Amino acid sequence: MQELEVETVADADLTNPVFVEGLPGVGHVGKLVAEHVVEEGESTLVRRVYSEHFPPQVTVGDEGVAELAHVEVHAVETEGRDLLVLTGDHQAQENAGHYRVTDAFLDIAEEFGVSDVFALGGVPTGELIEEYGVVGAVSDEALAADLEEAGVEFRSEEPAGGIVGTSGLLLGLGGRRGFDAACLMGETSGYLVDPKSAKAVLEVLESLLGFDVDFDALDERADEMEDVVEQMQQMEQGPSPGSEDDLRYIG
Amino acid sequence: MQELEVETVADADLTNPVFVEGLPGVGHVGKLVAEHVVEEGESTLVRRVYSEHFPPQVTVGDEGVAELAHVEVHAVETEGRDLLVLTGDHQAQENAGHYRVTDAFLDIAEEFGVSDVFALGGVPTGELIEEYGVVGAVSDEALAADLEEAGVEFRSEEPAGGIVGTSGLLLGLGGRRGFDAACLMGETSGYLVDPKSAKAVLEVLESLLGFDVDFDALDERADEMEDVVEQMQQMEQGPSPGSEDDLRYIG
Amino acid sequence: MQELEVETVADADLTNPVFVEGLPGVGHVGKLVAEHVVEEGESTLVRRVYSEHFPPQVTVGDEGVAELAHVEVHAVETEGRDLLVLTGDHQAQENAGHYRVTDAFLDIAEEFGVSDVFALGGVPTGELIEEYGVVGAVSDEALAADLEEAGVEFRSEEPAGGIVGTSGLLLGLGGRRGFDAACLMGETSGYLVDPKSAKAVLEVLESLLGFDVDFDALDERADEMEDVVEQMQQMEQGPSPGSEDDLRYIG
Amino acid sequence: MQELEVETVADADLTNPVFVEGLPGVGHVGKLVAEHVVEEGESTLVRRVYSEHFPPQVTVGDEGVAELAHVEVHAVETEGRDLLVLTGDHQAQENAGHYRVTDAFLDIAEEFGVSDVFALGGVPTGELIEEYGVVGAVSDEALAADLEEAGVEFRSEEPAGGIVGTSGLLLGLGGRRGFDAACLMGETSGYLVDPKSAKAVLEVLESLLGFDVDFDALDERADEMEDVVEQMQQMEQGPSPGSEDDLRYIG
Repeated sequence: MQELEVETVADADLTNPVFVEGLPGVGHVGKLVAEHVVEEGESTLVRRVYSEHFPPQVTVGDEGVAELAHVEVHAVETEGRDLLVLTGDHQAQENAGHYRVTDAFLDIAEEFGVSDVFALGGVPTGELIEEYGVVGAVSDEALAADLEEAGVEFRSEEPAGGIVGTSGLLLGLGGRRGFDAACLMGETSGYLVDPKSAKAVLEVLESLLGFDVDFDALDERADEMEDVVEQMQQMEQGPSPGSEDDLRYIG
Repeated sequence: MQELEVETVADADLTNPVFVEGLPGVGHVGKLVAEHVVEEGESTLVRRVYSEHFPPQVTVGDEGVAELAHVEVHAVETEGRDLLVLTGDHQAQENAGHYRVTDAFLDIAEEFGVSDVFALGGVPTGELIEEYGVVGAVSDEALAADLEEAGVEFRSEEPAGGIVGTSGLLLGLGGRRGFDAACLMGETSGYLVDPKSAKAVLEVLESLLGFDVDFDALDERADEMEDVVEQMQQMEQGPSPGSEDDLRYIG
Repeated sequence: MQELEVETVADADLTNPVFVEGLPGVGHVGKLVAEHVVEEGESTLVRRVYSEHFPPQVTVGDEGVAELAHVEVHAVETEGRDLLVLTGDHQAQENAGHYRVTDAFLDIAEEFGVSDVFALGGVPTGELIEEYGVVGAVSDEALAADLEEAGVEFRSEEPAGGIVGTSGLLLGLGGRRGFDAACLMGETSGYLVDPKSAKAVLEVLESLLGFDVDFDALDERADEMEDVVEQMQQMEQGPSPGSEDDLRYIG
Repeated sequence: MQELEVETVADADLTNPVFVEGLPGVGHVGKLVAEHVVEEGESTLVRRVYSEHFPPQVTVGDEGVAELAHVEVHAVETEGRDLLVLTGDHQAQENAGHYRVTDAFLDIAEEFGVSDVFALGGVPTGELIEEYGVVGAVSDEALAADLEEAGVEFRSEEPAGGIVGTSGLLLGLGGRRGFDAACLMGETSGYLVDPKSAKAVLEVLESLLGFDVDFDALDERADEMEDVVEQMQQMEQGPSPGSEDDLRYIG
């Protein structure tokens, strides 16, 4: 195998599509959005990307069939802008690997005539969230106005630690290669997989790109997570209600 | 030395051989099977593979003679299908290394006209085992039926963490290169070297490939391990039976 | 992206400039000096260096604009020798990366006709400092006399652990390439960002190169840090003076 | 800088020299021997080897002069066989680095017409030593007899963990390239720098190669270490002699 292999699974005739990335990360927010759009929308798997920068690993599926570590690009036709959605279970595992894999993703975007890139993710707040804000970062100042109109907040020098991994490099390398790239980060506690944060990000994306997918599956997962959180909170309050000695951090 | 060096030790004229891998891993199950087949069968060492992806190390043998880290491929002629058995003491130690070393193994398989690959290993259950099941994964759905007939169980999305290292990549890369690849994983506690699990895997392999090797050596090692486990259990029960203070986890 | 990319932002016509490096390190001493000189002096950003050896990361600036990890070279014209100042938020993250990135920095120095290199940093003493000494190391014995005259101390075999990272390699690789390279290390506790140590280093540098920048901003930061240290010391003395139970290490 | 750079410092006209390696390792035994031979013998520094596989670091010497991480090869003329002695403060820091650096050392050996390689080191016993044995390993069984005659012990499959790093690869790679390579490992507790173990190894080496260097410096260092050990033992026995409660492991 080569360092990077892009497998053409199908072709798709998209009109001025937008590249949307949702790989594993904080609260799995980006991955939840990307997978939801692929599942609910009219989507075609168009590319698989394999790389020796991914873990040396297969995952085992429904019938015991093993699949080599890879990420996938799906073409999704919508009533608004068409989408080219990158998702999967892996990120690269070393510095140079991240740079090279992200460059390959941008090559695919270029091949499909993409000029706009959205990297989706979560921003950890460290506390349970009531109102799910969406924080933005852009490769070019001129991109901020449209995003702000769609409800995205821009906070000076946030996130403080920068944006790491594929999402960060899609902005950084993407911007240098001439793409208009933005990162949408849903606020999330950072402790749990967070479908509510994913919904907040998806709503912004829909508003920006003029498409519309059913939220039911995401709402269901959010309800399940609510139940989990409630159970955890009850466990924290302990057998004798009123005792507060037992309040512990939700890790 | 090159990144990878395949040394030809001998040649062998095998008819439609099967590639069988048993490198170190969970419970050393795969390695035990592979070494047992090489020792009991009519085998010839045909290739040594050296790589800078292996540890920078020599092992010291019987007469103080040092051998550079490598793995070995043995040709084994049987009354059933001939075997090409990969075994040794090392796996690669980084992502890219795993990919490159496994590709080299598949090159050797190809050179000998192999189309079927079996990667052998263990699947950890976390508890001592009574009945040693063998769990399977395949590069292609069509391969499952024959394996199931031989007693292999297929469990949806198991092992949950996927299959890592050479075994995983023999399926993943092997499948992509057109090999029919399967992984046979003996259930094992995961705490100890497990010759019983190895025997269960070997029985499946024999049934699939129509060969037959003496089990005595493996049974002996299994008996030795039984003694070890018994001693550990007695130590756990402590000098004064009835006292339960001393129950400890078998690590 | 290539392994290393040097972006030309502007050109500058410097006369026999001196290369000055201040990247993150012990007490951020080098970085404080370099940034102070760039901010207070008449400076032009001339080069950006990107590399896959830097973290796969963007930082988010004032308007939510993301910048790919990089370091910067600024041309600073002074009444003394002109300066070419390297600063930024990143160092390479692996052995080979450090060597390759530092070689690229020296290429830039060469391009600007530099023959003298100053690597700035801190040397940790493990205790709070009263008098901020500046310790030196040089690529060539002949360079020591001028530095000693400017107040730099040379201590045999110090720092004991050598000088690591870009500063060390600017001496090591720089010396081998024919540069006259020196490292100026301000004594610092090692526990805190240390503007006072930075001031001590800057004074030496000014004396050596005959330039003069306003110290106000650095003094202000030093005063802020003084306040922080005082508060920490008061906290250590606890609410009831005399109690020594609460004495803790300043980490 | 290239991945590996061999700098010619001087040439030497040696007759059928033996390559002797003593880099940092267990008890610094190999390094002590190599440095002692270089210091006491009639030696010339002939090569420096730099590599991006060494740490990105300079060491600071007597006059504050920095030296880039490297190892050195010295030609030593003796009344017996001439020596080519490799010593220094660094080993490579990654798998592939170890292989590549060791291959470069063997290239130098080849250049000087060497056919015999001795890798020197220590073998940890975990306890304080009375009689310092020297354990051997060889690239070829035929080499053992001469070594045994000189007092080297060969113990089947020892050291159990193999021999790692440059010493191991000089045997492993050296053997594959046609050198007659042996490793001499002085028994040492493994807790302390061990000049006594070094002396034991040096005596074997002298007997094998027919040369003779003054032991005084090594004996002095051994006496110093004796004092250190005695002090440690007294500290262990505590203020009240006779009490044995306080005997603790020397870590």
